[in-house]
Amino acid sequence: MSNSKDAVRKILDSVKADKRTSLTAPEGKLVCDAYGIPVPKEGVAKSATEAAGIATDMGFPVVMKIVSPDILHKTEAGGVMVGVKTAAEVETNYATILANAKKYKSDAKIEGVQIQQMLTGGQEVIVGAVTDGSFGKLVAFGLGGVLVEVLKDITFRLAPATKQDALSMLDGIQAHEMLKGVRGSDPANREAIADIIINVSKLVTDFPEIAEMDLNPVFATKDAAVAADVRIVVDFAPKPPRPRPNHDDIVRQMNRIMKPKAVAVIGASSENGKIGNSVMKNLINGGYKGEIYPIHPKAEEILGKKVYKSVKDIPGEVDIAVFAIPASLVAGALIECGEKKVVGAILIPSGYAETGNVKGQEEIQAIGQKYGIRLMGPNIYGFYYTHANLCATFCTAYDVKGQAALSSQSGGIGMAIIGFSRSAKMGVSAIVGLGNKSDIDEDDLLTFFEQDDNTQIIAQHCEDLKDGRAFAEVAKRVSKKKPIVVLKAGRTSAGAKAASSHTGALAGNDKIYEDVFNQSGVIRARSLRDMLEFARGVPVLPTPKGENVVIITGAGGSGVLLSDACIDNKLSLMTIPPDLDAAFRKFIPPFGAAGNPVDITGGEPPITYVNTVKLGLEDPRIHALILGYWHTIVTPPMVFARNMVEVKKEMKAKGIEKPMVASLAGDIEVEEAADYLYQNGIVAYAYSTEIPVAVLGAKYKWARGAGLL
Amino acid sequence: MSNSKDAVRKILDSVKADKRTSLTAPEGKLVCDAYGIPVPKEGVAKSATEAAGIATDMGFPVVMKIVSPDILHKTEAGGVMVGVKTAAEVETNYATILANAKKYKSDAKIEGVQIQQMLTGGQEVIVGAVTDGSFGKLVAFGLGGVLVEVLKDITFRLAPATKQDALSMLDGIQAHEMLKGVRGSDPANREAIADIIINVSKLVTDFPEIAEMDLNPVFATKDAAVAADVRIVVDFAPKPPRPRPNHDDIVRQMNRIMKPKAVAVIGASSENGKIGNSVMKNLINGGYKGEIYPIHPKAEEILGKKVYKSVKDIPGEVDIAVFAIPASLVAGALIECGEKKVVGAILIPSGYAETGNVKGQEEIQAIGQKYGIRLMGPNIYGFYYTHANLCATFCTAYDVKGQAALSSQSGGIGMAIIGFSRSAKMGVSAIVGLGNKSDIDEDDLLTFFEQDDNTQIIAQHCEDLKDGRAFAEVAKRVSKKKPIVVLKAGRTSAGAKAASSHTGALAGNDKIYEDVFNQSGVIRARSLRDMLEFARGVPVLPTPKGENVVIITGAGGSGVLLSDACIDNKLSLMTIPPDLDAAFRKFIPPFGAAGNPVDITGGEPPITYVNTVKLGLEDPRIHALILGYWHTIVTPPMVFARNMVEVKKEMKAKGIEKPMVASLAGDIEVEEAADYLYQNGIVAYAYSTEIPVAVLGAKYKWARGAGLL
Repeated sequence: MSNSKDAVRKILDSVKADKRTSLTAPEGKLVCDAYGIPVPKEGVAKSATEAAGIATDMGFPVVMKIVSPDILHKTEAGGVMVGVKTAAEVETNYATILANAKKYKSDAKIEGVQIQQMLTGGQEVIVGAVTDGSFGKLVAFGLGGVLVEVLKDITFRLAPATKQDALSMLDGIQAHEMLKGVRGSDPANREAIADIIINVSKLVTDFPEIAEMDLNPVFATKDAAVAADVRIVVDFAPKPPRPRPNHDDIVRQMNRIMKPKAVAVIGASSENGKIGNSVMKNLINGGYKGEIYPIHPKAEEILGKKVYKSVKDIPGEVDIAVFAIPASLVAGALIECGEKKVVGAILIPSGYAETGNVKGQEEIQAIGQKYGIRLMGPNIYGFYYTHANLCATFCTAYDVKGQAALSSQSGGIGMAIIGFSRSAKMGVSAIVGLGNKSDIDEDDLLTFFEQDDNTQIIAQHCEDLKDGRAFAEVAKRVSKKKPIVVLKAGRTSAGAKAASSHTGALAGNDKIYEDVFNQSGVIRARSLRDMLEFARGVPVLPTPKGENVVIITGAGGSGVLLSDACIDNKLSLMTIPPDLDAAFRKFIPPFGAAGNPVDITGGEPPITYVNTVKLGLEDPRIHALILGYWHTIVTPPMVFARNMVEVKKEMKAKGIEKPMVASLAGDIEVEEAADYLYQNGIVAYAYSTEIPVAVLGAKYKWARGAGLL
Repeated sequence: MSNSKDAVRKILDSVKADKRTSLTAPEGKLVCDAYGIPVPKEGVAKSATEAAGIATDMGFPVVMKIVSPDILHKTEAGGVMVGVKTAAEVETNYATILANAKKYKSDAKIEGVQIQQMLTGGQEVIVGAVTDGSFGKLVAFGLGGVLVEVLKDITFRLAPATKQDALSMLDGIQAHEMLKGVRGSDPANREAIADIIINVSKLVTDFPEIAEMDLNPVFATKDAAVAADVRIVVDFAPKPPRPRPNHDDIVRQMNRIMKPKAVAVIGASSENGKIGNSVMKNLINGGYKGEIYPIHPKAEEILGKKVYKSVKDIPGEVDIAVFAIPASLVAGALIECGEKKVVGAILIPSGYAETGNVKGQEEIQAIGQKYGIRLMGPNIYGFYYTHANLCATFCTAYDVKGQAALSSQSGGIGMAIIGFSRSAKMGVSAIVGLGNKSDIDEDDLLTFFEQDDNTQIIAQHCEDLKDGRAFAEVAKRVSKKKPIVVLKAGRTSAGAKAASSHTGALAGNDKIYEDVFNQSGVIRARSLRDMLEFARGVPVLPTPKGENVVIITGAGGSGVLLSDACIDNKLSLMTIPPDLDAAFRKFIPPFGAAGNPVDITGGEPPITYVNTVKLGLEDPRIHALILGYWHTIVTPPMVFARNMVEVKKEMKAKGIEKPMVASLAGDIEVEEAADYLYQNGIVAYAYSTEIPVAVLGAKYKWARGAGLL
């Protein structure tokens, strides 16, 4: 590859020397040659006669294209002729193209006319690369023509792309069937297209100055894929990357921040209603066992704690400082923290980039960089780490310990997390406000939670990713161990606009987020409630060992809705083999329906639920159960619930654990039954067929991404 | 048109006489001619010479196609040649086509070769018609080629289609932009395509024996639309339509059924746990004021009521009989009901079509028809009509009066409706089980609820529609007055399969349901919870007077998610004019963001919410408000809630009423605040940004369909 790199470097150097921002077609061809991207036979003619000669040598039909550094949109300029079939036609067209070009741009520098072997047949596809402000280099794939233009049917992956990535792109577009051949046409050569995707992604990775690349169209036949047109745009002054500590430093820093031995509260206050008072109370009443140092210029004692005038006056080490002072005072106090070697500044104050004060934010970022202080915020509610009884926040305290770690970019969403958690009795390991993300962001949290034994699932609300590439890299690794759920707000253009006025961050193209989340094994929540329900339910469910899902229902109507929900959530309803079908039939009335859903019918006693569910758990071919309960006099809600929990326990004692979710249809007593089931490891909901299945779907999505299925 | 009809009748008669199931191309052309559907110039040649002559007369290029009643798929048979440019070519091709046809089917009867003017340019579209088991004649529209085949990008309307229907189809496909001209091509002539759609829909309506029709492709240029190929399939023995009483009879019958003066309970019982006992108790304890007649062969008195051996023994009139006896005894008792002139039989028993007993169901249907008894069920839980204190069901009683009328095809879903209603304190006018729908179905209920003053919204769960056409006709009328929400289960193929095993009904193609629901002004719920939330929330909201929606939020993060939800629910975020923007800015801090969302920022006192919301209500350019609340010490949840309710009341006193929904982010106290807001006419949810906006979206969808916007 070093020869290849040299060849490309030479071309780019010459483009740079010319102060150009794009490559000519012949330059593009040479770049493709260097990286093994097939292009048509071609040559550049300086005269009509030479053109005819080149065309005759490569064989007809040919395409003719103007070569000019000043004409980027060749078709618009009348600089392209396709399907030219004879030498005489070539000569006439040569003159026409030159005349058109002059007409289009009289001072255009014209280097000749390119004669290109004309590719026909096969499927037209597009391979390209773009540079995203957050994710960096991305490779793109779509079908040629209207599908990309009108339906925006295109898919992205981070570059460089692996072969698996590249092949997944071919299946990642809506119209993926087109590549398999329709109306009797040959399928396109998948390997050949994948090779082009991989090589484009390598090229733009090796040469960051390639800002955009378009191979459009690429003709993909059953034998090969050839790029008929190459467009390369360069940018020799890309923006510098966001500073990022190395992995071990992040782990060390974040452990001190999340599990500090000593916390300073800058702006601590005795006065009710003040943020500095709420933070002090939450720390003390939350049961935090480390040192708490209030900082205030005048007070002596606050809430029984000795007050210091500056963090620098504190005798011992201080891990974090919670800032509860106006933005104008932050920089000075932050320098003192730096001198004290505080590792984390929890910046509650607002009044930074979100209000247009970008300079103020840059100032504190620079201080953080200089002293090696990690900044959380500014413009946040603080954070909770329940396993250290730490409520470093001005919001209400929360102490229900559990295994879900949640974060939010926005304070309002943080409060919704608290309220939902309390209401649903969801234990959490941490709740973290990220706000403006001047420094600490989602990937720092992922890095910490990855190695935090108290955390089994990570759920993050975000409006943008400041460093999408860092996030994707970390998420890809972490999601192999622990599920990551992301609620990406600003999905729609209106939402993105709202996000931009709210945080100063222009939310990125949603399709890119979607594809990168998939590539990184991230479970995307579609709504706030989904994020919360996934955080609560996914860790409750054991990991399935295979794709075979079976619905067992007392309500046929629930069975239909549960089946719909399975498809919506990409779950596979198992095709029940005859022996298993016969086994189910033994337990259900003759007019019940076996198959899948197994419809045990509505009037059955508890034993029918017990027998069929036990069978579903015992048979190793079944990997997950969805239960549909129908409230009857014969099997009241709590009787059903207790029976199901007993069956689950009995099976667990035998070493059998499978994910089970339940939908309960009935009068209000089903709410108690659903709670009881949930508390005992069966994710259950009253009056909903869709939520329990969505939670199971999230578990499956994670297990697939982590390679466990 | 009578000449046109005669022409088509003549052709169809000859097809019928020939015992054929499809028309030849020349016959298809004549049918098109009769109904004003443009087709290319053409002629049929019996020899190569004649072919060349016809082609020369109409001008080159031409298309040549085999004409044979035995060859339906002409391309496959090698019977089509396109782009034929000279008379000599025509002669050679004639021989080739004949040879190919012989090879494909040696005994095919060959009537010649059709020579057709070749259409080029423009956009290829497809217009067709199908006959659906439930909806009858439907007209279909899509783009030609891969878009229909691979992406299934096609849309349907009931035939006959109005001009408005036809034009809405052009915008109803995903790739609708294609018709507007892409890559500089001309837009297609919308009127011309709409005319073809209208005429096809008329044709299949006039001639029900036309089972399928395909115009594929139709070439649509900026001037015209011409059908290049016509395929017509006929069926001279279509299935008979479902019996359907006329409108006035339905109203009369349903009023006696839903608000009966006297109810017989066939199979009444004193024994706890028996269905006939539960029904008796629910009637008595529910507070029903009419006559209750228990029917039992041996008992004297049940729950204090005199028992009769047969309905025929009852002295007075009986409106409905609730059946709580085994299926095997139903027919006999039903005949007695017929003789007694009972108007409605509430058939709780199961054991009919859902278990394969189709004959049993047909038997009771025939009895119902004979005696004019309307049948509800069989295989149902019964029904509730709260305003008559009537619980004609074996499930638990429900008596919270309200304006939502709900029905379900399935018993389990019925119980979920009861439980949700009780839990959410949702008042209902009726809850009805429809089960196997041997007779009474969704359109009977719509017809009743349309004129029922106690009902303001109708929400129906169904797995199929037995007579989709009747439903659509009634729904189109009723939805102009009262919102109709439908949860169509069996959306997915797995769901449809489950529905089919459950009710014996093969659920129809979901895209057809989707399009017909839209055409009929029906709001489609995507999930059980959505159906329930819409039923609860839509009647609470006043009808908006315009499309301008404004978000006012204390939490910027909620604003972003609410904006996303607006787009998801097809709501228009108003572009705030400068004067209004300035007016909002007066009330919010300088670092707050005006625009839309109006971000008042998190730390504001109640007055800021009050001022901005009042402004939003008072300004006539704003038509609906979405509130995002963020729980703070400064504005606690109940303070916010009480203030909002006061503002609402103050404005109402001034004659200003606009729909308001709210999303509450905060600790657990926001649940009480959400309840309070909801009870006072502001549809509010804790921990969800998506549900309140979805309810507002449903209200808007209804208002648009009803022509109120």
